Amino acid sequence: MNIPKTDLPRVVIIGGGFAGMALARKVLKEDMQMVLLDRHNYHTFQPLLYQVSTSGLEPDSIAYPLRKITRSSEKCFFRLAEVTSISAEKNTVHTNIGDLIYDYLVIATGSKTNFFGNDSIEEHGMWMKTVPQALNIRSLILENLEQATITDDPEKRKALLNFVLAGAGPTGVELSGAIAELRNHIVPKDYPDLDPNEMNIHLLEGLDRVLPPMSEHASKKAHEMLEELGVKIHLNTMVENYDGHLVETNTELAIKTETFIWSAGVTGAPVAGLNASAMVEKANRYEVNAFNQVNGYENIFAIGDIALMQTEDFPKGHPMVAQPAIQQGKHLAKNIKHLIRGEKLEPFEYFDKGTMATVGRNRAVVDLHKWKFSGFFAWFVWMFVHLWFLVGFRNRTVTFFNWIYNYVNFDKAARLIIRPFKGHEEKMTMDKEKV
Amino acid sequence: MNIPKTDLPRVVIIGGGFAGMALARKVLKEDMQMVLLDRHNYHTFQPLLYQVSTSGLEPDSIAYPLRKITRSSEKCFFRLAEVTSISAEKNTVHTNIGDLIYDYLVIATGSKTNFFGNDSIEEHGMWMKTVPQALNIRSLILENLEQATITDDPEKRKALLNFVLAGAGPTGVELSGAIAELRNHIVPKDYPDLDPNEMNIHLLEGLDRVLPPMSEHASKKAHEMLEELGVKIHLNTMVENYDGHLVETNTELAIKTETFIWSAGVTGAPVAGLNASAMVEKANRYEVNAFNQVNGYENIFAIGDIALMQTEDFPKGHPMVAQPAIQQGKHLAKNIKHLIRGEKLEPFEYFDKGTMATVGRNRAVVDLHKWKFSGFFAWFVWMFVHLWFLVGFRNRTVTFFNWIYNYVNFDKAARLIIRPFKGHEEKMTMDKEKV
Repeated sequence: MNIPKTDLPRVVIIGGGFAGMALARKVLKEDMQMVLLDRHNYHTFQPLLYQVSTSGLEPDSIAYPLRKITRSSEKCFFRLAEVTSISAEKNTVHTNIGDLIYDYLVIATGSKTNFFGNDSIEEHGMWMKTVPQALNIRSLILENLEQATITDDPEKRKALLNFVLAGAGPTGVELSGAIAELRNHIVPKDYPDLDPNEMNIHLLEGLDRVLPPMSEHASKKAHEMLEELGVKIHLNTMVENYDGHLVETNTELAIKTETFIWSAGVTGAPVAGLNASAMVEKANRYEVNAFNQVNGYENIFAIGDIALMQTEDFPKGHPMVAQPAIQQGKHLAKNIKHLIRGEKLEPFEYFDKGTMATVGRNRAVVDLHKWKFSGFFAWFVWMFVHLWFLVGFRNRTVTFFNWIYNYVNFDKAARLIIRPFKGHEEKMTMDKEKV
Repeated sequence: MNIPKTDLPRVVIIGGGFAGMALARKVLKEDMQMVLLDRHNYHTFQPLLYQVSTSGLEPDSIAYPLRKITRSSEKCFFRLAEVTSISAEKNTVHTNIGDLIYDYLVIATGSKTNFFGNDSIEEHGMWMKTVPQALNIRSLILENLEQATITDDPEKRKALLNFVLAGAGPTGVELSGAIAELRNHIVPKDYPDLDPNEMNIHLLEGLDRVLPPMSEHASKKAHEMLEELGVKIHLNTMVENYDGHLVETNTELAIKTETFIWSAGVTGAPVAGLNASAMVEKANRYEVNAFNQVNGYENIFAIGDIALMQTEDFPKGHPMVAQPAIQQGKHLAKNIKHLIRGEKLEPFEYFDKGTMATVGRNRAVVDLHKWKFSGFFAWFVWMFVHLWFLVGFRNRTVTFFNWIYNYVNFDKAARLIIRPFKGHEEKMTMDKEKV
């Protein structure tokens, strides 16, 4: 990998997501050599991916080149690499571009889509964890609108205009709301040949309310807002099969659709090679102690979605979202410094800053500890927080401008089909997971 | 295609480039039914494609959804379609989504890359006529930098860091200048493991000066500016072969490179079905009269790159650039109106607004009739003109902001590899032309 070994302790970080990036930004100020590995050359601001999928933002404004992080220090290196396995006994990481020895290894590989073993969904559905996948969804939505325009077959048109999302967590709620806004504001203007009333957005949720991780208040408000936007919500409904044309559920509900988006769950994305005892198998996450050390290892850490730290407040681990990841990343920088100096480690304590989700163009729901609120002001808070956490002045400015523009004009202008499917019959031949 | 035939005369436009769009914007104000066909759902501002290739701009800010044009009038339709042929005797266009009858047909299909029969270049080289192709070049450049970082083989590193462009027209000059800026400002900061001096940009030109379509003054100045940026210019040098690793020329020059960009020529992109006499075979362009009527047809027109109108000033037709296309598009709207009303047609007269090319981050060359100038002020003019012609308020603002940001920060932040090649051995398996 062409990285000289120096006298400095070497910290290798796998993954430049929220956790890895938060850690990297701290480590590069310390007397350590750092190597950041990622299979993309950019950090993805996942909370805004749904706006890329629905033409509201261009992908470049929610991504940030990882080399712009590592360039701040001569002791820091970035490598575009896919990690294949870890040999802990040799303190070595194996990757597609060669091996790398570490003194301290941090696994921040995040999570991947969980299909719960349902192959039909994995084969025929769409999902959204990366920029290319978000662009795939954008292309598919726009192509289906074009197809619907030209078809003479009313049944086929209906299927093309049915958008079905499984899973009403923040992703499902935000994505269905944004597709509803496309239907309400873009389709009537730009697709005069289509009847917007023929376009239906169905949001399916296995539990008895939308946004199950949030408060009852947020669920209730989000439910109302989605229905006002025209999203059809089906609670207590689990998808059992999707053959590329028909969604079948555990109830009588069955929907013909060409666009089925799976947002019903994630699972850890571990790396091969560690002892079986390091994993909490059911969750696919590494069991870590209060210092984020992986069970059974002294110098291997896990942070973010991939780490499962059991605490009194979170017996099943912290929620797999950005905040615990960022906080663990920042905190771990301190503990690695302590380790190097032979000092006592400090246990991680999660500070819950609250959760929020946006619904449609100007409303949101926010849970801040005991303060729950929703509506326009919540949306304002949502905007501010997301701009704040977005990395880079350029990204913030372009995103802010696009939001104002889209808001004032009821428009979503980033509507390029740049990753076209080879036609609907073959739409699933696209490599959805890899890139 | 689901387009109702009304009493209004129907104008069908093939292609939403500069010519087609200029025409469409005029026609939609008239008492005509208009159908705009394009194989992309967006207009591409080709003069700025090179900035997408070199990470300066995101693709969405130089593209414009074509439906945002057609939506202004209920009599206008857009269809995402690939035209396969024309049956003039039946006034019918055949496409991949069905047939379409026309009263007036306008061919505005533009041009495509001309390989002059050299299969090795078509098979192994890169070129840049569309947004996806520009994104391919962006990915390849960034991947080669990453590869160069990790290779131990000095010969391989050299090949990865050699960027070879054939053809020193505006595209070759602007692209090589922008790659040189990447080398001069981004590589030293973000790729500290690389020696920028190992990165070489070679610009090859078959004629005896760069920018052959422009004035001697512009050629001379652009040559100087490129050399100051560190671009190695090879005049009177024609590429004869590229096997994916080695560029061979008609001189002794041979360069090992993994990035070979072909910008040495375009040729018309005609549609099948018209009489042989309609074509100027050598140019692959339709022969049109002063009213842009295709030779031998009353109600079939060609405008823009695909049209070859012989005039006293331009015996070989107008230059295949944006200005003649825009002017012919606007002018033809008038003539179609005249035809419908049985009035006399007005011959097209080209008003040469001059040509310009930018070199590097803050200089340009401009030919305005007898006024030739270059340097910083020319770059200022270049910026202003390009912002002016860029379609849409959003695109202008985002582009302007990015330019200021890039200029002040010596940065190019749109550096996502979102269309990765499957590894260098297989880089040519990517579908370069189709999308």
